[in-house]
Amino acid sequence: MNNFKYRNPTKILFGKGQIENLSTEIPANSKILMLYGGGSIMKNGIYDQVKKALSGYEVVEFGGIPANPEYSVLLKALKVIKDEKITYLLAVGGGSVIDGTKFLSAAALYEGETPWDLLTNKKPVTEGMPFATVLTLPATGSEMNSGSVITRAETKEKLAFGGPGMFPQFSVLDPEVVKSIPQRQLANGIADAFTHVMEQYMTYPIGAKLQDRFAESIMQTLVETAPEIMKDPSDYEAASDFMWSCTMALNGLIQQGVPGDWAVHSMGHELTALYGIDHARTLAILAGNHYRYNFETKKEKLAQYAERVWNITEGTLEEKAHAGIDKTDEFFKSLGIDIKLSDYTKDYSETGSTVAKRFTERGWEGLGEHKSLKPSDAQKIIEMSY
Amino acid sequence: MNNFKYRNPTKILFGKGQIENLSTEIPANSKILMLYGGGSIMKNGIYDQVKKALSGYEVVEFGGIPANPEYSVLLKALKVIKDEKITYLLAVGGGSVIDGTKFLSAAALYEGETPWDLLTNKKPVTEGMPFATVLTLPATGSEMNSGSVITRAETKEKLAFGGPGMFPQFSVLDPEVVKSIPQRQLANGIADAFTHVMEQYMTYPIGAKLQDRFAESIMQTLVETAPEIMKDPSDYEAASDFMWSCTMALNGLIQQGVPGDWAVHSMGHELTALYGIDHARTLAILAGNHYRYNFETKKEKLAQYAERVWNITEGTLEEKAHAGIDKTDEFFKSLGIDIKLSDYTKDYSETGSTVAKRFTERGWEGLGEHKSLKPSDAQKIIEMSY
Repeated sequence: MNNFKYRNPTKILFGKGQIENLSTEIPANSKILMLYGGGSIMKNGIYDQVKKALSGYEVVEFGGIPANPEYSVLLKALKVIKDEKITYLLAVGGGSVIDGTKFLSAAALYEGETPWDLLTNKKPVTEGMPFATVLTLPATGSEMNSGSVITRAETKEKLAFGGPGMFPQFSVLDPEVVKSIPQRQLANGIADAFTHVMEQYMTYPIGAKLQDRFAESIMQTLVETAPEIMKDPSDYEAASDFMWSCTMALNGLIQQGVPGDWAVHSMGHELTALYGIDHARTLAILAGNHYRYNFETKKEKLAQYAERVWNITEGTLEEKAHAGIDKTDEFFKSLGIDIKLSDYTKDYSETGSTVAKRFTERGWEGLGEHKSLKPSDAQKIIEMSY
Repeated sequence: MNNFKYRNPTKILFGKGQIENLSTEIPANSKILMLYGGGSIMKNGIYDQVKKALSGYEVVEFGGIPANPEYSVLLKALKVIKDEKITYLLAVGGGSVIDGTKFLSAAALYEGETPWDLLTNKKPVTEGMPFATVLTLPATGSEMNSGSVITRAETKEKLAFGGPGMFPQFSVLDPEVVKSIPQRQLANGIADAFTHVMEQYMTYPIGAKLQDRFAESIMQTLVETAPEIMKDPSDYEAASDFMWSCTMALNGLIQQGVPGDWAVHSMGHELTALYGIDHARTLAILAGNHYRYNFETKKEKLAQYAERVWNITEGTLEEKAHAGIDKTDEFFKSLGIDIKLSDYTKDYSETGSTVAKRFTERGWEGLGEHKSLKPSDAQKIIEMSY
C-alpha cells in the first residue's frame, strides 16, 4: 500500500425528506445563489421543495447550467454572485451543476487575471465561497469530492481542477429523486460510477486488500442494482443502493494508497469535447478496449475482477481476465449503451489521430497508472473503438 | 436503508514516516500535552520520533494512562492541562490513550459541576480542545471516530460518551508500529475490530447492499490478514491492511443507514469492569453465544455472513447460519483467545445475575438492534458463556 493523506469533510444528509433540513445546515443571514440546470427540477417537484426549505433566506436563482458545464455560462453566474453580493452557493442538480458550482466557489474568491487560470494553472484550490448541493442525479460523485470538470466551447476544451477547498459543506442525497430520472440518464449514471471505480481499481496488484474489496463491493452493488433501477426507478431501496454507490465510487475513499489509471476519462473527455457524446457513454466506448490494449500490465487485476465481481472461476488467468473485459462491455450494453464510436458519429475516421494531436499539443505527461501511454497509444485505443 | 447524517472530518496520514508530518498539521504556537500509556513507546522508538517531530513546540508530557482509561488518572491530566495552559492534546497510543484524550478534550472546556457528567448526562459533546493522535495499536478505531469509553475503578463503571466535537483533527497511522506489538495485543486488536464490524452488521436484512458488502470486506480482510500478522508482525503489507481495516471497522462508515446491535459490547464492558478481562476477549467470550441466543432474529444475516465471509455454501439457511457462528468462535480461538469466561476467572458462578442486576439498577433501555433484550436475557447469554 502506498502512503496517503485522506480527509473528506463533506456532511451527507441521506434519505427521504432530507431537503427539509437545508435551513439547519446553511448559516442564517446567508444570501444564497441557487444554481440549477435545464429545469427538470421544476417538473419533479424538487424546485418547490428546495424553495420551501429556503423560505427564511434571501435567495437569487441562476438556471440553465448545461451538461458539461460551460465556462461562458458560468461567467454570467459569476457576475450575479458579485453584483448581488452572494455569500453561499447551493447547487441543485447533477454532476454538471455541482461541478459548475465548484468553479464558481473558487472563482468568487480568485484574485488572478482570469478565472480560466483555475483550470490551467494546476494549483490545488484551498479556499472557496461556501457551497452545498442537493443531488438530483446519482453519477459523478461530485457531491462528496473536491474535483470539478469544466468545458469551454470556444476552444473545445474540457479540463479538471480541484483541491481541499472544493468539498461541498454538505450534500443532500434523497433517493426519491431517482424515480423521475429518464432512462438514458440512469444508464449514464450507472456506467459513470462503475467506470469511476474501474479507474481506481483496474491497475496492478499493490496489496491493498481492503481498497480492492471496497471497490469490488461498489461494482457488485451496481451490477446487482442496475436491472432493478432500470426496470423501476421508483424502487426506493434500489435507488438508495444506487445513489450511495455512486457517491462512494468517487469520494476519495477507494483511491487511498493505490495507483490510479484515469486514461479512459482523459480520452473520453476528448470525445465529449469533439462530438458532444454523453460523458458516461464515452467511457463505455473506450473502457473495454483500453483494458484489451493494456492487457499485459493489467491482467492480474482483470482476473481478480472477473472472479470477484462476475464469479468467473473457470479458465487460466488470461482467460478469466479476457472474460472480465467482455463482461464489462456486456454490462454497458445491458444498460442500453452503445459501445462503438461509430454508433454515435459518422465522422470518426480521424478521431484517433485528432485526439493524439490534441494531447501532444497540450503538453503530454503520459497516461495510465504507469504514465507510460503515449499519444500514439491513445490513438490506437480510440481506433480500436471505432 | 434508513435515513442517515454522516460526516467524518478526521484527516488520516497513513504510511511509513508520517510521524514527521506532525509539525505541518499542529498549529504553530500550540502548547502541547503529549499523552501516552505505560511506556512501550519508549522501547519501540515512537517516543523519540514524536519528540523529534515536535521539536519546534512547547511540549508537556503525561504518561501512565492505563488500559481502560481510568477517570482518577485522567483528572490528574486535566489538572496539568489547566495549570500549564495547554492548547493542544496529542495522544500517542492505542484506544485507551485516545479515548482518555477525548475525555480530556471535552473536560478541558466543560463548565458543569464535575467532568463525570460527560459520561452520565448522555449529551453529545459538540466542542473540545483540539487534539490529534499517533496510533500505536490498531484495534478500536478511536483514531477516526468521535466516541470514547472511560472506566471508573471506584464504582466499577465503564461508560461511553462522544459527539461531533470529539473527532481527532488528524491521526497518524504508520503500520511500522505493528512490528513491536506483543502477540496478545495483536490478537486483541484483530478480535476487537472484527467484533466492531459484527455489531454493525449482524442484525437483520435492511437492503443496504453496499454497507453489507463493505462490512464483509473488512471482515474478509481481517480473516485473510490475521494469520500473516500473527506470524510476522513486521510484514509491512499485512500490517497496512490490518491497520486500515481496524480504522474502517469503526469510523462510522459502515453503520450509516443500518441498525446496530452493540449488545456484545454492553455485556463485555461489564466483564471488564468486574474482572479486568481484556476488552477484546470479553467480546470473544460473548459474541458466539449472543448470536446463538438470538438466532431466530439474526439467522438471515448469519447465513449471508457464512456464505460471503466464510464461503459456506452448503446446507439450509439455518445450517449455514450456525456454521457461521462456529467459524466466528474458531476464528477467535485461532488468534489464541480463550472464549469461555471460566478460562479467565474461577469466580464466575454469579456473573450472569450480577450483570443483570447492574443493568437493572442503572436504568435499562433494552439491548440489541430491537432494544428487546432484557436483563434476564443478558444473564442467560452470559451464563451460556461460562
